[in-house]
Amino acid sequence: MDPDVLRQLAEELIPFNKFLGVRLVAVDRGRVELMIPWRDELIGDPLKGAVHGGVISMLADTAGGMAIWAALENPVQRVSTIDLRIDYLRPGRPEALVAEAVVVRAGRSVGVADVRVFHPSSRDEIMATGKGVYVIKTPRAVPARQ
Amino acid sequence: MDPDVLRQLAEELIPFNKFLGVRLVAVDRGRVELMIPWRDELIGDPLKGAVHGGVISMLADTAGGMAIWAALENPVQRVSTIDLRIDYLRPGRPEALVAEAVVVRAGRSVGVADVRVFHPSSRDEIMATGKGVYVIKTPRAVPARQ
Amino acid sequence: MDPDVLRQLAEELIPFNKFLGVRLVAVDRGRVELMIPWRDELIGDPLKGAVHGGVISMLADTAGGMAIWAALENPVQRVSTIDLRIDYLRPGRPEALVAEAVVVRAGRSVGVADVRVFHPSSRDEIMATGKGVYVIKTPRAVPARQ
Amino acid sequence: MDPDVLRQLAEELIPFNKFLGVRLVAVDRGRVELMIPWRDELIGDPLKGAVHGGVISMLADTAGGMAIWAALENPVQRVSTIDLRIDYLRPGRPEALVAEAVVVRAGRSVGVADVRVFHPSSRDEIMATGKGVYVIKTPRAVPARQ
Repeated sequence: MDPDVLRQLAEELIPFNKFLGVRLVAVDRGRVELMIPWRDELIGDPLKGAVHGGVISMLADTAGGMAIWAALENPVQRVSTIDLRIDYLRPGRPEALVAEAVVVRAGRSVGVADVRVFHPSSRDEIMATGKGVYVIKTPRAVPARQ
Repeated sequence: MDPDVLRQLAEELIPFNKFLGVRLVAVDRGRVELMIPWRDELIGDPLKGAVHGGVISMLADTAGGMAIWAALENPVQRVSTIDLRIDYLRPGRPEALVAEAVVVRAGRSVGVADVRVFHPSSRDEIMATGKGVYVIKTPRAVPARQ
Repeated sequence: MDPDVLRQLAEELIPFNKFLGVRLVAVDRGRVELMIPWRDELIGDPLKGAVHGGVISMLADTAGGMAIWAALENPVQRVSTIDLRIDYLRPGRPEALVAEAVVVRAGRSVGVADVRVFHPSSRDEIMATGKGVYVIKTPRAVPARQ
Repeated sequence: MDPDVLRQLAEELIPFNKFLGVRLVAVDRGRVELMIPWRDELIGDPLKGAVHGGVISMLADTAGGMAIWAALENPVQRVSTIDLRIDYLRPGRPEALVAEAVVVRAGRSVGVADVRVFHPSSRDEIMATGKGVYVIKTPRAVPARQ
């Protein structure tokens, strides 16, 4: 998958990603890092200033889907989330967030990605882990190298 | 729990909720409905115009936590998400979203809520189901009716 | 799907099911009930005499897969679990257990089932809920070395 | 936590563990390995001879709870599963199974453990991963018949 295509998809073409300022900061085959720069609108706990859990789940879901997509050979295939699990391990600080997603199962019709969410300034302090299961759909009537 | 306090928390005091326009549309003891009005920035799939999965997971997580909180007797207790699972059943249309959360387990330190996400125009077409597990923390030293 | 075939599969052909005494007590299209008669070897908590969580998760997983399988039109398709989530709501008593599974998503390659586990003497006291995601595989060339 | 006490609990005192032949093969603070020797009754897929998913989920749940328990300082505390998620990554062979559980969150009232299930002959080929969330209960009045 062409990294520039993936970047454009992640940053520009998906409106909610663009709304939150998502950026693609790394991509390999089956591995992706997405980043959201900090802004105070991301706060979920006004007493602690901690990031909203929904920002974390959104970023984890998106990163997992991108990692699956980055592992496909056929660019007309579509990826959509079947289920997502997020475990929140510690509160986040008011800083940029990174979600690193790695494909752990890549089948013909189903892919699974593991995700870790952290601040780029402390990659070992995991804020949350995620696991997403994605269905991979291949359009039936497409003149493609299926 | 005073519904007005809950409404203010849900709509005004949590910055990410306010940013997305979350509104509290129903509240009973152990049951809450949150709504997000439609805006095109919520789109996740530009080809289909479908809502972003992250909007769904954010709304489900928040509704689940509010339902737990609405079931507490002691307002100084705090609720935070331990884990969240979302199952996406069908794509959403470009319309307002509602998440209805119901408490299914209310323990001393842990609560569990079931969530269903749908459009208010078709409450039986469930877009996604969610399940959130929340830890309930009681501040140790507080001059309260503990 | 022929109920007798399903029953034989559930009760006789799967060794671990047979080992635990699993019985198929109801089957419709997309809905299945499996039962395990009580025996003291199923205890997980010797102080309370409560059933082992692993018995519940085993029965839920199996019932979910059977429900998906009972909804298929092509009997050569195979069903295997991608992921399983169990939420334990209350301890079980030393009595027979039933898992009722209902298909909530039936796609071309992925199915999802909701499961409730209870004692047949009190069907409304849910011991645990489960959700299983299953991949449906259709052998490409049939008959073949499947 | 005394390893011999933990071993006796894991192998002898929990009837379902004993029924399946569970053995405690390693224990550190916050880390546990449980093993089930192979027997043909554990088969779930008679065509492939693969292990039943319920054996995997049972072993993962038990190992996760033991890891939490092994991290407690107060032996009268009780651990019970709130929720369990299993992701099945590849089928198992007819061989002994090991579940290695590591505590990733150890709070006052809630603990979370990550589990990996594999054959001891190939520890890097992960059959399944699990994540268990456990409530930790401290009896209020001790000593008591808790």
